[in-house]
Amino acid sequence: MSVFTAISDSTMQAWLADYAVGKLENLQGIEAGVQNSNFFVTTSLGRYVLTLFESVARADLPFYLNLMAHLARHGLPVPAPVSNRSNEYLGTLAGKPAVLVTRLSGHSDTAPSSEHCARVGVMLAALHLGGLSYKRKQSNPRGAHWREQTATRVLPYLSNDDRALLEDELTLQRQIDRAALPQGVIHADLFRDNVLWDGAHIGGVIDFYFACNDALLLDVAITVNDWCTWPNGTLDTARAQALLESYHTNRPFTPAEADAWPAILRRAALRFWLSRLEDFHLPRAGELVTVKNPAEYRDILQLHATQARAAKAFPI
Amino acid sequence: MSVFTAISDSTMQAWLADYAVGKLENLQGIEAGVQNSNFFVTTSLGRYVLTLFESVARADLPFYLNLMAHLARHGLPVPAPVSNRSNEYLGTLAGKPAVLVTRLSGHSDTAPSSEHCARVGVMLAALHLGGLSYKRKQSNPRGAHWREQTATRVLPYLSNDDRALLEDELTLQRQIDRAALPQGVIHADLFRDNVLWDGAHIGGVIDFYFACNDALLLDVAITVNDWCTWPNGTLDTARAQALLESYHTNRPFTPAEADAWPAILRRAALRFWLSRLEDFHLPRAGELVTVKNPAEYRDILQLHATQARAAKAFPI
Repeated sequence: MSVFTAISDSTMQAWLADYAVGKLENLQGIEAGVQNSNFFVTTSLGRYVLTLFESVARADLPFYLNLMAHLARHGLPVPAPVSNRSNEYLGTLAGKPAVLVTRLSGHSDTAPSSEHCARVGVMLAALHLGGLSYKRKQSNPRGAHWREQTATRVLPYLSNDDRALLEDELTLQRQIDRAALPQGVIHADLFRDNVLWDGAHIGGVIDFYFACNDALLLDVAITVNDWCTWPNGTLDTARAQALLESYHTNRPFTPAEADAWPAILRRAALRFWLSRLEDFHLPRAGELVTVKNPAEYRDILQLHATQARAAKAFPI
Repeated sequence: MSVFTAISDSTMQAWLADYAVGKLENLQGIEAGVQNSNFFVTTSLGRYVLTLFESVARADLPFYLNLMAHLARHGLPVPAPVSNRSNEYLGTLAGKPAVLVTRLSGHSDTAPSSEHCARVGVMLAALHLGGLSYKRKQSNPRGAHWREQTATRVLPYLSNDDRALLEDELTLQRQIDRAALPQGVIHADLFRDNVLWDGAHIGGVIDFYFACNDALLLDVAITVNDWCTWPNGTLDTARAQALLESYHTNRPFTPAEADAWPAILRRAALRFWLSRLEDFHLPRAGELVTVKNPAEYRDILQLHATQARAAKAFPI
């Protein structure tokens, strides 16, 4: 349910006249994503995706769009924003901020193997290395301040056990020395549905609208929590090792990152437990978001907190 | 014979450390092209092409590389230069200027249909429209000055008939009012081997190292002369119409262009007749260029000069 705004063929055709991509041949809404309206746009010249921003503020968009352009320019398979004839990425369509991006090939895979995870490790390292020279900054909107505020708001809805888990975890997270960890631009949402597979290779990494500056290791942890766990939340050490080792070969971990790894894995799990708790207990009026099960991330967090598997998978 | 400089795997691997594209998996020389050394580069992240410039001056490269980047940013399927970690496109490898570009999919087709030609018309119009906002300028090194000089140098080698044809043609070309024709960035070499087909669609347009500023119509004429002629040099009106009409739909021709069309087709044919005569009669020492038959373009020129087919194919 992610086409919130309808666009007619004639409206689209007229809008495309400001681009150098030929004439509209097909326009089709995409039933995925939770924040924006997305469309496949096929023209006489190529294949693109149109995004209308339903909830992201216009002022926030240059950080994301220029980041995608920057990473594409470094040879990474990310959606590249398409410039209009005035050399601008950001336009307006149906009264909303709108951007046309290149369409990447491939499909997401919900049951990744160790080989998939090794490829994801290479890609994540490449995103981090390519992002080092990106000049714009955006602090993590799901950082420490958000964590504390959201925890306060959802605590009343939790069982005693979950409340204890959450409070212990907040105490632990307050003690981590972030400054010791290498910082950079992170994707912050590199879940399985945001990677497109073209055979055995990654054809594309999509959805950069959570990207921000934070510890690179946090991005690794978010990725491992989604790609390398079993349905019960247990870490699959083989997949985690494959991802971490291929990452490490391309962007070597520091000793401080090795020390922080178990706690950062927990921080990454906590971030998604909290946002899911918020979506579940405190849904915003009129929002069409599919509510994901908060318990999935509570389980991942609890298992990280009680098992030593995580540290064993780390390559240094 | 276009790998003039050998590059070892270890040299390449070391060079790639300054890029965010993963580790080298395969390096393979490409046996095509006449000016540079080209290699397919496969990494753990994706597929690229490395070009070492053997004869283009380093100072001339920013025009070409930034043009390719500009067109890619406008959504066109052209090789996009890949930035290194210092955000630079142009590097140095084996002592030569070197650039890594994205590898496009598809293969060239030497027997194009009217459908192919219609797609090429769309693409050429898109290249011209996308190029309108490109700020750097480069005058055509195969323009009027080169034409006169080269004609003087090759005239002594020609038969009486060919000499008369060339002299008449030079006289005609001196009379064309260039200022009346819309100007812009042109590819200037959009031959069949520079378009890659991915099924029925164009997967890529390559080889921008003749690109320059000149009359857009000259680019259309160069393209029609290669894509829409029979082996004996006769224009195939059906293919020419398909190409011209699809171009016109995207970048409408002006009345001045309609008037100039027959003469510009002859100018485009003359340019390749002259360069092939030069390569044939006055080869430069040490050059490994495959000499193409000059008579092919003399025939095209002569038929344009004596037949009215060209004007009939023009859409306005």
